[in-house]
Amino acid sequence: MSGTGIEDRLALQDMLVGYCRAIDRRASADDAAAYYVEDGVLDNSAVGAPVAEGRAAVRAMIDGMFTSMASLEHYLSNVLVETGDAETAQLSAYVVAHGQPNGGDAFSMRGAYVVDASKVDGAWRIARLTFTPFG
Amino acid sequence: MSGTGIEDRLALQDMLVGYCRAIDRRASADDAAAYYVEDGVLDNSAVGAPVAEGRAAVRAMIDGMFTSMASLEHYLSNVLVETGDAETAQLSAYVVAHGQPNGGDAFSMRGAYVVDASKVDGAWRIARLTFTPFG
Amino acid sequence: MSGTGIEDRLALQDMLVGYCRAIDRRASADDAAAYYVEDGVLDNSAVGAPVAEGRAAVRAMIDGMFTSMASLEHYLSNVLVETGDAETAQLSAYVVAHGQPNGGDAFSMRGAYVVDASKVDGAWRIARLTFTPFG
Repeated sequence: MSGTGIEDRLALQDMLVGYCRAIDRRASADDAAAYYVEDGVLDNSAVGAPVAEGRAAVRAMIDGMFTSMASLEHYLSNVLVETGDAETAQLSAYVVAHGQPNGGDAFSMRGAYVVDASKVDGAWRIARLTFTPFG
Repeated sequence: MSGTGIEDRLALQDMLVGYCRAIDRRASADDAAAYYVEDGVLDNSAVGAPVAEGRAAVRAMIDGMFTSMASLEHYLSNVLVETGDAETAQLSAYVVAHGQPNGGDAFSMRGAYVVDASKVDGAWRIARLTFTPFG
Repeated sequence: MSGTGIEDRLALQDMLVGYCRAIDRRASADDAAAYYVEDGVLDNSAVGAPVAEGRAAVRAMIDGMFTSMASLEHYLSNVLVETGDAETAQLSAYVVAHGQPNGGDAFSMRGAYVVDASKVDGAWRIARLTFTPFG
């Protein structure tokens, strides 16, 4: 449970959905990185990636995914806003990801996101996103 | 983001979930077709089906699915209301579908719905539903 | 559709998500059983389990799952509040479950939950949860 109101709770869910879809749509790494605050962190270290610190590093990591992967799909479920107030929140979700590396075999991965979010100029952004695979 | 309020946003999501479940429940093609406006369009042309234009054509296409398929399951995720006002909206969602054709092999399909919705007599209905498979 | 307001509708969804995640997190059978009312019922009889009647029996059944399974993951989608008022509600959802039995082969199962919920001291709880597998 949290002190986050309904508007914010739905906006937080939309933020995470929008971010995953920006990755999958592959329109631009800038679009996807814009979901992060300026000093935002993308922590995929549990699957062997370096921790990207700051929006430029996040953008570079996403750009690298676009280069190495022919396609990515992220299916979110079980989204919960765990804690929060008017300006910060922590949410989490399950995710099933399907990926097709260039010149490699398609794979599926299941796990969870934990996201620290901050409201900047009225819009929720990712302060830190951590992925932990199941199993 | 959209100008759609919270009540409408949740009602739009319920509409799409209800429609998918009406298909899966197979109670009647009328039930499922009733989710469409009178001149609603079901566009599965990306997977080789003709475009069904008008509720009667939609009903006939759904009835055909019921005849050819022993079972269907549609799992929605990543639902987003993209644009909208009090009377119209566009929403999109990811979908994983599992199907068992009569006398054929079970299959799974992943893709996205884009839905143009209209509010008719206070209830959201599908004006056009387009399915695009991933990959 | 239902007479359930937006706050309750989201709280009901959070309850079901929270329950599934409590099972998957395996922190304690007490945590998971606390989602049920005192005389709550867990009905997995469609997959050959006895019907657990009362929170103590539910807790024992969940504890048995923790003992027999190395891991469980429940992915919810298509959540709908079907009927309801301020104190009771019926909701349903699709679920994909992935399980890894101790010393056995991993499995996946798809099906639906139907949940009778009651509000007790301001919090929604499970009065009866019934799982029905698809196919």
